[in-house]
Amino acid sequence: MQFFLNGFFGRDPKLREIAPRLKDKPVSGDLPAQADVLIVGCGPAGLTLAAQLSAFPDIHTVIVDVKEGPLELGQADGIACRTMEMFQAFDFADQVLLESCWINEVTFWKPDPNQPQNIMRHGRVQDTEDGLSEFPHVVLNQARVHDFYLEFMRNSPNRLAPHYGRKLLDLQVDASATDHPVTARLERVDTHHDGQVEMIRARYVVGCDGARSAVRKSMGLELVGDAANQAWGVMDILAVTDFPDIRYKVAIQSNNGGNLLIIPREGGYLVRLYVEMDKLGEDERVAQRQITVDRLIAAAQSIFHPYTLEVKEVVWWSVYEIGHRICDKYDDVPAEKVHSRQPRVFIAGDACHTHSPKAGQGMNFSMQDSFNLGWKLAAVLRRQCLPDLLHSYSAERQSVGNDLITFDREWAKMISDKPAQNQQGSGGVDPKEFQKYFEKHLRFTAGMGTQYQPSSLTGPSTHQHLASGLLVGMRFHSAPVIRITDAKRVQLGHAAKADGRWRLYAFAGADDHRNDSKGVGALCKFLEQSADSPLRLYTPPGQDIDSVFDLRAIFQQAHHELAIESMPALLLPRKGRYGLRDYEKVFCADPKSEPDIFDLRGIDRTQGCLVLVRPDQYIAHVLPLNAHRELAGFFAGFMLSNQ
Amino acid sequence: MQFFLNGFFGRDPKLREIAPRLKDKPVSGDLPAQADVLIVGCGPAGLTLAAQLSAFPDIHTVIVDVKEGPLELGQADGIACRTMEMFQAFDFADQVLLESCWINEVTFWKPDPNQPQNIMRHGRVQDTEDGLSEFPHVVLNQARVHDFYLEFMRNSPNRLAPHYGRKLLDLQVDASATDHPVTARLERVDTHHDGQVEMIRARYVVGCDGARSAVRKSMGLELVGDAANQAWGVMDILAVTDFPDIRYKVAIQSNNGGNLLIIPREGGYLVRLYVEMDKLGEDERVAQRQITVDRLIAAAQSIFHPYTLEVKEVVWWSVYEIGHRICDKYDDVPAEKVHSRQPRVFIAGDACHTHSPKAGQGMNFSMQDSFNLGWKLAAVLRRQCLPDLLHSYSAERQSVGNDLITFDREWAKMISDKPAQNQQGSGGVDPKEFQKYFEKHLRFTAGMGTQYQPSSLTGPSTHQHLASGLLVGMRFHSAPVIRITDAKRVQLGHAAKADGRWRLYAFAGADDHRNDSKGVGALCKFLEQSADSPLRLYTPPGQDIDSVFDLRAIFQQAHHELAIESMPALLLPRKGRYGLRDYEKVFCADPKSEPDIFDLRGIDRTQGCLVLVRPDQYIAHVLPLNAHRELAGFFAGFMLSNQ
Repeated sequence: MQFFLNGFFGRDPKLREIAPRLKDKPVSGDLPAQADVLIVGCGPAGLTLAAQLSAFPDIHTVIVDVKEGPLELGQADGIACRTMEMFQAFDFADQVLLESCWINEVTFWKPDPNQPQNIMRHGRVQDTEDGLSEFPHVVLNQARVHDFYLEFMRNSPNRLAPHYGRKLLDLQVDASATDHPVTARLERVDTHHDGQVEMIRARYVVGCDGARSAVRKSMGLELVGDAANQAWGVMDILAVTDFPDIRYKVAIQSNNGGNLLIIPREGGYLVRLYVEMDKLGEDERVAQRQITVDRLIAAAQSIFHPYTLEVKEVVWWSVYEIGHRICDKYDDVPAEKVHSRQPRVFIAGDACHTHSPKAGQGMNFSMQDSFNLGWKLAAVLRRQCLPDLLHSYSAERQSVGNDLITFDREWAKMISDKPAQNQQGSGGVDPKEFQKYFEKHLRFTAGMGTQYQPSSLTGPSTHQHLASGLLVGMRFHSAPVIRITDAKRVQLGHAAKADGRWRLYAFAGADDHRNDSKGVGALCKFLEQSADSPLRLYTPPGQDIDSVFDLRAIFQQAHHELAIESMPALLLPRKGRYGLRDYEKVFCADPKSEPDIFDLRGIDRTQGCLVLVRPDQYIAHVLPLNAHRELAGFFAGFMLSNQ
Repeated sequence: MQFFLNGFFGRDPKLREIAPRLKDKPVSGDLPAQADVLIVGCGPAGLTLAAQLSAFPDIHTVIVDVKEGPLELGQADGIACRTMEMFQAFDFADQVLLESCWINEVTFWKPDPNQPQNIMRHGRVQDTEDGLSEFPHVVLNQARVHDFYLEFMRNSPNRLAPHYGRKLLDLQVDASATDHPVTARLERVDTHHDGQVEMIRARYVVGCDGARSAVRKSMGLELVGDAANQAWGVMDILAVTDFPDIRYKVAIQSNNGGNLLIIPREGGYLVRLYVEMDKLGEDERVAQRQITVDRLIAAAQSIFHPYTLEVKEVVWWSVYEIGHRICDKYDDVPAEKVHSRQPRVFIAGDACHTHSPKAGQGMNFSMQDSFNLGWKLAAVLRRQCLPDLLHSYSAERQSVGNDLITFDREWAKMISDKPAQNQQGSGGVDPKEFQKYFEKHLRFTAGMGTQYQPSSLTGPSTHQHLASGLLVGMRFHSAPVIRITDAKRVQLGHAAKADGRWRLYAFAGADDHRNDSKGVGALCKFLEQSADSPLRLYTPPGQDIDSVFDLRAIFQQAHHELAIESMPALLLPRKGRYGLRDYEKVFCADPKSEPDIFDLRGIDRTQGCLVLVRPDQYIAHVLPLNAHRELAGFFAGFMLSNQ
């Protein structure tokens, strides 16, 4: 965490300096007449986007929600490793680690062949393979995730807080308007203001308003897909049981009425059960069955046999039917008009895709949707990038959303199927196959299945061999390094903050450790001096040299062998109003970590390489250190010169 | 973190359930007429004590400070590993880790023999040896440490907040009073109330009111010691320098006016410099020299030669003379009356000892003082222990305070001495010896030098060979283990919360993994069933079975080989209003940690052992698992039966 660059202060460093436009401005509960971005919906997608945009003092964001206040009891609870990496960029991963339940191992239960009315454990799987991420897979009430985002927003330069009790009536986009082309009409539904209608004009509107999204409807789009005609119940309970694995994630296939999933929850006592209930008829809705919580409990007790389950408190419960639906476009530009129109309205999260909750993907995919969109909106609004960039949101996220629906359809089918009664597995799913399918998809459910396809934002794999473990299009996989200026062991990936900046990681070749004419030294010289340098072309005048591109170097020598006196000046940049040196740009491999970052990520130790990482932590390109022209060309494809 | 035991709630789990006596009670800024404990002073010692006591719903604590509000700019900044371990018990170590500057390595500089006006690096030392603690040595503004304690107090069942703007006038102890024998008179010094005098009667008063302690004076005690007649300056600055080690802790011995210490600070830019200034005459006070900050800066610049130092902002600065003084008793009972009187008034922190700040010990020793006192006051107030226990505070802390003064006197002398000009080191201190002395005392400065002597609270070392790495009288040294109920890797020592409970760690012998007649099983049986069992004798009726003694077991088998179904019931206790099972009591060695906890802490793998740990994390005793009678006898020495 870096702070005090522009002078000391006594407050919590997470409370950022207030944006100049807000100084001495009275706080008002009214909706402003216009904004840069209007976000509809305070769920995980909406709050991730709002938090991301709140970090930019010059962007005016408004976020509304139909509810009268913050969520107190969430439905979603699974937080994938990938999501934890994103939380790290918002500086609250540590709080989540402390408060959440960690999923370390999954156990599998099936009918005991000798006593088929009993269940028995038949397998165990480590939930997250060693080294997949520096973070574990955890479980925490969605409402607490909201709390952390809301705190980040309150502390941001924009001191952003939601406007609650607003229901979107409709949206209109005026294609001829030169500015703020989207007009939204909202109705107040909060006490004392009920029925009042407000208007707001925005440059962009993002619908994070759930499966029944009013924003999506206003765009004339819909979710398309199918239903599995299977009812499930879910309940969060405090209970006493002699089932030994109650604090593990567990998948039970039983002969006593169906299948069951256990998700242990934060605090050490709470547990969530997903319980298979009735098969539904074609087009039948689960509500028609009038399933009660007592039936859920009875079904769970039956499945648990011979173990007992005594429910002491039902914190929350629900029934649902499994469906898999997705929208074919995440913005308001039809496919055939992509080359002639810029998007103005977007949807994210459940507004784009709905599926079964049991793989724990809903909240995670939703947040990754809007984390993908956030930096792009900021870059366009701040005139760093061409508006064309915004097309990439739907292109990238709709494609990975499709993968999710495909996975979920198969997983939901398996999980609602009977255990096979014999070795051939006829008439059901073989418990071994069930476990295998789960294991096979663990990287996907950890959030590591996302790989963006080549585009103006994602380079070709031409130089992938220089960093075989840092795949272009996938998220930057962190590893430990030593910071040479103070010998601190840090995670290199944690340099990435949710601040809209690009990270340029220059991995030095074996002989490369001085400010000289090749490798890292030559790259720094190019970036500092060349007329083609992206740093010179795209960094706004008057801003810190690393305000758009945050260059960091990683050497192979031990920190004792690296003299900071001989480092290129660009790696010890002077910043802020005092011109203080930033000492957190230069690293070396950790001699106590075996294998080190070069080996862990398959980096060519002779040549080194340059890895370009987007503001949302995805790898945009891998290049040789001396490919200065390719580097310049890549950014020229979508960035706007400051000239 | 465990929560929801008595039902779900939607709030931050750090916000505890409010104490029954505070429900529906209006909040008042007035001082109450009486309290269990009155703490004078909101420094590190006072706040540690207040935070500790605030955790008990049945203890009424009042804390006052002469200042009008919380500290914004602190003087102390060093946080030793041992202190971080204590912070972990208050659940804010993670926040400190995130925000603080980590001290990883110390470098040593001396005059360049070839150019004695220049300084050159001659050594490097890793600051904290591998494995000394699971926490690093860090640096953070004292005011932020205060903030974390104040937040803990606000969140506590007592919702405790300081009464600011109160100056202690005097104290009177009425030896004949049966209750609340101490009367304090306080004068309000805050705006609008200036001059008002308030009275409060307390059972105990603790003076955490600094070197000029009014509480100490009211007891007729004083600090005794000597001064080194050496003036030093200290300043926190934002500066630009080409000195390469500015982000390391550095000790410079120079020929240009004296010595200098660098302490890098949180945020990546701020740095603290300790600068040697004038030699003082006998009995001369530093204030007489009228040293200015410009003189400090000039002295630092001279010492840094040939490197430059350009100061951009001075955040705080001060000059001081080195003194080493200690009070010979930390409570109001003279040595000769220890057997006939109980203490009612205590002092802690700078009120007991003052010394030079450069070893970073002041804040740390102060907090350890009152962490030692806090649980004892709570245990006596809650009638768990005999009031005699309170004598152990002065006995234990005054003794380690003396060690500190001895260390500091020698260190301060060295650090104010000239570098030796020749190999023989005549006329000054040899830089190599200087570095050696520093290295030798690293464990001490990390806070690991404290070992309490045998007493009713600290058992003899009879069975020390059963756990050669867990020394009786020293702090419990944590190590990683696997929790068998959910396969989570945790630090065993983090079971210790600042909740006044004893931890009983039962390390099982190699064959011991079932609920049977020996080892851990037999111990559980004794604790559950015997009339001599401390659990039965000292746990108040109606409270959870682990409310006084928190028993945890550590086995040698892998978690897959340990069936929780066959564990003694005491290791899966049912608690709270629902009788929910606590699943966080049973652990095993971590197969991925080589060596494992048994080897790391020298635990006898054949016999196992029982380690008793006090509420302040110090080891009270090591016993064989079957030494049931010794176990009962130990607690009978100072605890009060609930009968």
